[in-house]
Amino acid sequence: MKKRNIIDKLMYNETIYQQGISVDCVMFGFHDRMLKVLLSKFNFFHKWMLPVGFIMKEEDMDAAACRVLKKRTGLDNIYLYQFHAFGSTLRPNAKEHRDIMAKMGLTDVNHWMAQRFVSVGYCALVEYSRVNIRANTSEELRWFNINEIPLLYSDHNSIIEKALATIRTQMDVIPIGYKLLPEKFPLSDLRIIYETILGKELDRRNFQRKILSTGYLIKLDEYHRKTGQKPTVLFSFDREKCEEALQSII
Amino acid sequence: MKKRNIIDKLMYNETIYQQGISVDCVMFGFHDRMLKVLLSKFNFFHKWMLPVGFIMKEEDMDAAACRVLKKRTGLDNIYLYQFHAFGSTLRPNAKEHRDIMAKMGLTDVNHWMAQRFVSVGYCALVEYSRVNIRANTSEELRWFNINEIPLLYSDHNSIIEKALATIRTQMDVIPIGYKLLPEKFPLSDLRIIYETILGKELDRRNFQRKILSTGYLIKLDEYHRKTGQKPTVLFSFDREKCEEALQSII
Repeated sequence: MKKRNIIDKLMYNETIYQQGISVDCVMFGFHDRMLKVLLSKFNFFHKWMLPVGFIMKEEDMDAAACRVLKKRTGLDNIYLYQFHAFGSTLRPNAKEHRDIMAKMGLTDVNHWMAQRFVSVGYCALVEYSRVNIRANTSEELRWFNINEIPLLYSDHNSIIEKALATIRTQMDVIPIGYKLLPEKFPLSDLRIIYETILGKELDRRNFQRKILSTGYLIKLDEYHRKTGQKPTVLFSFDREKCEEALQSII
Repeated sequence: MKKRNIIDKLMYNETIYQQGISVDCVMFGFHDRMLKVLLSKFNFFHKWMLPVGFIMKEEDMDAAACRVLKKRTGLDNIYLYQFHAFGSTLRPNAKEHRDIMAKMGLTDVNHWMAQRFVSVGYCALVEYSRVNIRANTSEELRWFNINEIPLLYSDHNSIIEKALATIRTQMDVIPIGYKLLPEKFPLSDLRIIYETILGKELDRRNFQRKILSTGYLIKLDEYHRKTGQKPTVLFSFDREKCEEALQSII
């Protein structure tokens, strides 16, 4: 995108966006036995960051978060919820932020876009296979393994940490995994999600006993077969119970 | 306060406050066996509301919430935490909000203060006896029993509901009551707090067994004596364990 266009767009944004506030989206997916986060990189800046966006003056904040992710993934009806608002004056790192803005042609340090915002963090849990990443000429998008996230723009590393910490406190209340896994899955995939979020290995049998006692899971009469390996029984989530539980934290 | 002064103040605010965002504080206290919420009423408006405030451009958002409550209560070091950000375009009720602003002399509907904000809700738990309410000529402040809250300004009733709903999901994780009760208290006071927040009566013995098993409480060798009644044993919270648990949700 040419500089002139970006400036025009900023000036246009001035009139349509709510000032001083943005949404930052931490979108989790699970693939190949790894928990992943979707990150974005603008071609005029050297660091990866979370998918972010402003809120339009006539738009609900939740709708803004949906729009930010739909634009990047094509997904409607993403399960997402707020987990924290970030309002420190130290964010975003002032120099880094001025650099980005300068590269976009915005040199007026008093412009609201060059100053501190409050960001509302949204956590999204999606089924990886449903995501159709939509990069464009100015933005690259990529899934990163949760344990291989690079140094991100501003405080985005700590925003991801906070999203994980929030999920940890919710793990006994809501069926984490329900939105992340496909319809049928082996229990070991769910265990890996728990292990990744908790940051520790779990005993296979204890996990199985505990997770089945929640009542969220249905054991299927189907097996996952891989040549050279023992067939693994598949599970499904009880959709109705899960939806009800998820409502409790929205 | 005279209209002229309010307008001057608004114009001054324009330069010092972050636009488009405010903090709304739900401060809970416990007194006389009742859970209470602190509400505020401006003398130029007919409805009660939560204590609210803007964030200064050079101020952390958490610090703004502390300032809003300190101004009204004199309290330093209030235990408070964010529970949700409210960003619907339907809030605050547009007509009601324009009414308030008009009464303050602000007739420009395009002024940011006349438009939608996003509000970050903070929940504060305080020991009632420590609060020294500081009303001033333009603002009245009063504790309301949680079950006797009138129809409030904008969406403030639902903000209180959301604060309670959040506490309900946290009750198994953090020692609710620790910041609300004085150093020594009968177990029945803690049970009343739980009953109020859960909205149902609890069996006295089951509650006692369950709450003691958390390990947060210390049974004292002291009694509360009231004439004509059996002495009641007093309890205290294990301060160290409680502080650690509370950290988990900040």
